Amino acid sequence: MIKELIKTIHLYHNNGWSPATSTNYSFIDENNKIWITRSGIDKSSVLETDFIQIDENGSYPKEDLKIKPSAETQIHCVIYKLFPKTKVILHSHGIYPNLLSSKMKSNFIFKGNEIQKGFFNVSTHLDTLKIPLLENSQDMLFFDKELNSRKSELKYNCFVIRNHGTYAWGATILDAKKHLETLDYLCQYEWNLISK
Amino acid sequence: MIKELIKTIHLYHNNGWSPATSTNYSFIDENNKIWITRSGIDKSSVLETDFIQIDENGSYPKEDLKIKPSAETQIHCVIYKLFPKTKVILHSHGIYPNLLSSKMKSNFIFKGNEIQKGFFNVSTHLDTLKIPLLENSQDMLFFDKELNSRKSELKYNCFVIRNHGTYAWGATILDAKKHLETLDYLCQYEWNLISK
Amino acid sequence: MIKELIKTIHLYHNNGWSPATSTNYSFIDENNKIWITRSGIDKSSVLETDFIQIDENGSYPKEDLKIKPSAETQIHCVIYKLFPKTKVILHSHGIYPNLLSSKMKSNFIFKGNEIQKGFFNVSTHLDTLKIPLLENSQDMLFFDKELNSRKSELKYNCFVIRNHGTYAWGATILDAKKHLETLDYLCQYEWNLISK
Amino acid sequence: MIKELIKTIHLYHNNGWSPATSTNYSFIDENNKIWITRSGIDKSSVLETDFIQIDENGSYPKEDLKIKPSAETQIHCVIYKLFPKTKVILHSHGIYPNLLSSKMKSNFIFKGNEIQKGFFNVSTHLDTLKIPLLENSQDMLFFDKELNSRKSELKYNCFVIRNHGTYAWGATILDAKKHLETLDYLCQYEWNLISK
Repeated sequence: MIKELIKTIHLYHNNGWSPATSTNYSFIDENNKIWITRSGIDKSSVLETDFIQIDENGSYPKEDLKIKPSAETQIHCVIYKLFPKTKVILHSHGIYPNLLSSKMKSNFIFKGNEIQKGFFNVSTHLDTLKIPLLENSQDMLFFDKELNSRKSELKYNCFVIRNHGTYAWGATILDAKKHLETLDYLCQYEWNLISK
Repeated sequence: MIKELIKTIHLYHNNGWSPATSTNYSFIDENNKIWITRSGIDKSSVLETDFIQIDENGSYPKEDLKIKPSAETQIHCVIYKLFPKTKVILHSHGIYPNLLSSKMKSNFIFKGNEIQKGFFNVSTHLDTLKIPLLENSQDMLFFDKELNSRKSELKYNCFVIRNHGTYAWGATILDAKKHLETLDYLCQYEWNLISK
Repeated sequence: MIKELIKTIHLYHNNGWSPATSTNYSFIDENNKIWITRSGIDKSSVLETDFIQIDENGSYPKEDLKIKPSAETQIHCVIYKLFPKTKVILHSHGIYPNLLSSKMKSNFIFKGNEIQKGFFNVSTHLDTLKIPLLENSQDMLFFDKELNSRKSELKYNCFVIRNHGTYAWGATILDAKKHLETLDYLCQYEWNLISK
Repeated sequence: MIKELIKTIHLYHNNGWSPATSTNYSFIDENNKIWITRSGIDKSSVLETDFIQIDENGSYPKEDLKIKPSAETQIHCVIYKLFPKTKVILHSHGIYPNLLSSKMKSNFIFKGNEIQKGFFNVSTHLDTLKIPLLENSQDMLFFDKELNSRKSELKYNCFVIRNHGTYAWGATILDAKKHLETLDYLCQYEWNLISK
């Protein structure tokens, strides 16, 4: 799975979705171990050795102080706990969700686009979808609380953090990609409609 | 032809024209058999084995329930019946036709751009072109009826589905590509002019 | 030179500058022969054999009726006659010059951007540049007359055709590229400023 | 380091950040020698031999008059003197900083985006950042004076030149990239918000 995930990370980097050293990615392997990208790496050239193994609370061996998991590791751990079928979590700094987040209150509302069928259990463009928009915070406990209290709103396997980025997950890489790309496309669509 | 079509699918995926698992593609081989991309595949890595053979009504062997043709197979079958010279059909979720479709009634009108000569039988930028815009539907019979009743409007070998995407076709891959790319460019042009 | 030109054509195709089978390219070889891309080819996969040799008036052997030079061959011939140091001519359908052309009268005026030093004999961003904007036509004699009568305005080695595209040339591929890319960038800049 | 820098230059060229022969790049090698891209080269195909060695004042052997360092060499030399830990300097002509520069006075102000943590010593999106915006000039002594007098404003390891481009630097290529990409993303974000 790691090779496919690295291919995805490179593809998304080419989209401009991971400027500087932003974004982070994780997966659960066949032995039920969580692997996450370490902090501070350039996503244009991520390697298998850039993934480090953490436990379900995000703990990791601290012998080498230079290598540590992404600062947002807690967000990944909360998602894995809330949705036990999840095997892959993707994060993006795509510009459209960020731009759109500056205009919205606590949710993104989408309706009428064929692409929304990219979400699990959505079979028509006529459905109205509500995707949670969380405030940004440097306190990972804030996200823990928010995600737990808004669990029922997370049924589309994704959410947005204001002026930060998007998270999406799935039981396979393909599922996680579908959710992330569907969300990004809907944001691009809605952003471009504003003031037109 | 399949290798050239796969190359095209990858090229279009890099354009952002097939987010999530959207879009579908078909061709008719030298034995007059129709091949179409199966449902639910990632267009960043489509393979020859992702094409499955269907009959002219879209039927296919159902032994393996996991593999099925694209949900929009009926649209392809209607196009092949209406325009018997067609050998290739392309579909795109490019953002510009979708955005423009939100502002138009039942047609896209184009005039004055050199690129419109990319359509068959258009030899000057001075022609006024009318491209059909269909409402979106999850009912494939709706498209069957619409395409049959609007056959005379389909002379540019393409149409748009509102907030969904574009279809284009031709007797060769090159012809189908010309029609799809010409339509997308014209939509990009017109969308950008709005409110400027 | 042909290999370097083909590399440039692919690079520009990836920019979206040659949708459908639009654009055409020519060069003069070491024996003073003009070679131009033949009509109707896909610029995503142009080959050395897609270039055909023409004389200085654009004539070419007509034995094979399927192969003919680009419809805009006369424009290339006029440029080579007017500016004898020219060895390479590039054409682009980039969206920004086309969009900007819809707002301008008979010239593009640029001033104040560092990038304008990409033009020959421009050594400061403070210069005011006037690039000719020609009306579009399917009559190649029209361009012959226009280019001859506006020769003095062509000192920046490029011009724009309204809702069609740009032409740029130089004594080397690098010079021609500099002129084309500088013009495109300036158009992108000016277009984005409108209504902001 | 030179191979990694060349990879970065190609990546940035694909972003459209170095049209024509614009931009320049330098680094300090393990023997404390400064190497800078020579003037007038196409960044789509920069080679190791396109870097030339200069002294700390920008002097270089003038035997071969065709080869000279970038016209903006003095800017690099001033940065290396002002910030002695600097080992790499990157320059970009990305369109967003240029567009945004046309609307701003003498600084870019950013606040509220997660990505701003890409700058050294910024640990929260709540910080307000002030990035210097310099007027453009063809007189390199002007930049020498400006950068010296505004040294305290350069704490984010980057600045913008009006209608010209951005400079960013760091003790490693990764640091320099982080600063350049963070600045570009913030400019893209702010530019898109205008008139929305």
